[in-house]
Amino acid sequence: MRIVLIGAGNLATNLGKALCEAGHSIEQVYSRTMESADALASRLNCDATNIFEDIVCDADCYVISVKDSVLENVAHAVLRGREDCLFLHTAGSMPLDTLPSNRRGVLYPMQTFSKHKDVNFKTIPCFIEAKDKADLEVIKLLADSISQSVYELESENRKYLHLSAVFCCNFANRCFALGAKLLKEHGDIPFEVMLPLIDETASKLHTMLPSDAQTGPAVRWDENVIGKQMALLEDNPEMQEIYSILSKSIHNDKL
Amino acid sequence: MRIVLIGAGNLATNLGKALCEAGHSIEQVYSRTMESADALASRLNCDATNIFEDIVCDADCYVISVKDSVLENVAHAVLRGREDCLFLHTAGSMPLDTLPSNRRGVLYPMQTFSKHKDVNFKTIPCFIEAKDKADLEVIKLLADSISQSVYELESENRKYLHLSAVFCCNFANRCFALGAKLLKEHGDIPFEVMLPLIDETASKLHTMLPSDAQTGPAVRWDENVIGKQMALLEDNPEMQEIYSILSKSIHNDKL
Repeated sequence: MRIVLIGAGNLATNLGKALCEAGHSIEQVYSRTMESADALASRLNCDATNIFEDIVCDADCYVISVKDSVLENVAHAVLRGREDCLFLHTAGSMPLDTLPSNRRGVLYPMQTFSKHKDVNFKTIPCFIEAKDKADLEVIKLLADSISQSVYELESENRKYLHLSAVFCCNFANRCFALGAKLLKEHGDIPFEVMLPLIDETASKLHTMLPSDAQTGPAVRWDENVIGKQMALLEDNPEMQEIYSILSKSIHNDKL
Repeated sequence: MRIVLIGAGNLATNLGKALCEAGHSIEQVYSRTMESADALASRLNCDATNIFEDIVCDADCYVISVKDSVLENVAHAVLRGREDCLFLHTAGSMPLDTLPSNRRGVLYPMQTFSKHKDVNFKTIPCFIEAKDKADLEVIKLLADSISQSVYELESENRKYLHLSAVFCCNFANRCFALGAKLLKEHGDIPFEVMLPLIDETASKLHTMLPSDAQTGPAVRWDENVIGKQMALLEDNPEMQEIYSILSKSIHNDKL
């Protein structure tokens, strides 16, 4: 397919590379700043622009991969003169109908992307949706060409999927960061010592559900340990509150 | 070394196997119930008992691996008649001086152990401590024989290490469980779809600190997404509170 990428952030960069490697032709990259448009375009060996009017009009598909807050406005700007084209967005939490185009779809690759960390796109679950059945087939072919795990999912459930990803990735990572803070402040222990534990915590989920894998003082409701650990956090009310509510959540498990 | 294992839970089981494989001789397993003592003893090919008086008196080392809440009492019971022996406990959050013996030490293998999931002990960081220098050397030899990552750490810092492990393992796992709950309740999406994201979230920490790896709506402070996701949790005040406090914690990052 002949594709125009709108956006040049972490997701657009990783997606663009995957699309190229799958044999699609990236026609052009648009970004708000010429600098980032150029940076991605040079990696994808295509043209760059930061002017909506200069975006080519005859691509098969326009993939809009920008911040949620500007998605609708950007899509409106790109739509002008391209009313018959297929538009996709890649945002987990945004409904399909955020796009103003007649032909519209979603391709949400659920992964945490960082600039300096390559990921294998083949293993990333991609969630797709479209207004029309014919376009859904097109998007499915596109998604299948870059990922081995493609699921159809409508906007209503996708917003909960995205919320689940916030818990499983962003909030879990915050727990790691708070753990790192404790190590640094008490004995200046290098965070590397936590990696086997963190790797095993993730690895266990390949053979058991997280509710079955739960361990620690809260699941045993060991009030002695819980009380002592709450006291250790006395100089950090925020961490103390997080400790308290997550311990109660584990203990009152209603899953 | 000739070792007696006091306790037959998840940690004792995994530690006992590792000690055997390293060529040590497990003389005996004690457990409160004969059933669990027998179960572990048969795996380690040694004797079992559930009577303190029947524990052999001439082992080189008594490794007490029981629930924190009964550690002190069990250690007192085993000590009688074995006053010159070396006693170790394996509990992350308990100070060295919980042990009443003259010769005392700690060997804390920091990992999450489940009954039906084998782990490679070689990769588990082990934190050791002893009252006497000579015993510390003995414990270091023992720890080095089962793990490639052995660190000396005194009780005062070890309690923070254990607290850090609660955040990195138990609380992160709770976030995974809450994510799984959302998937189940909305579209009955199989939890497997989260595994690539969770694996990548853990894997990133091998090349960057968790504070640098943080992504998601809270780090961008995208109030639109945060507001919508808070609303999705309206029927679950506990999850809503967790969402709110972890988002604020990410945003107010003082790390």
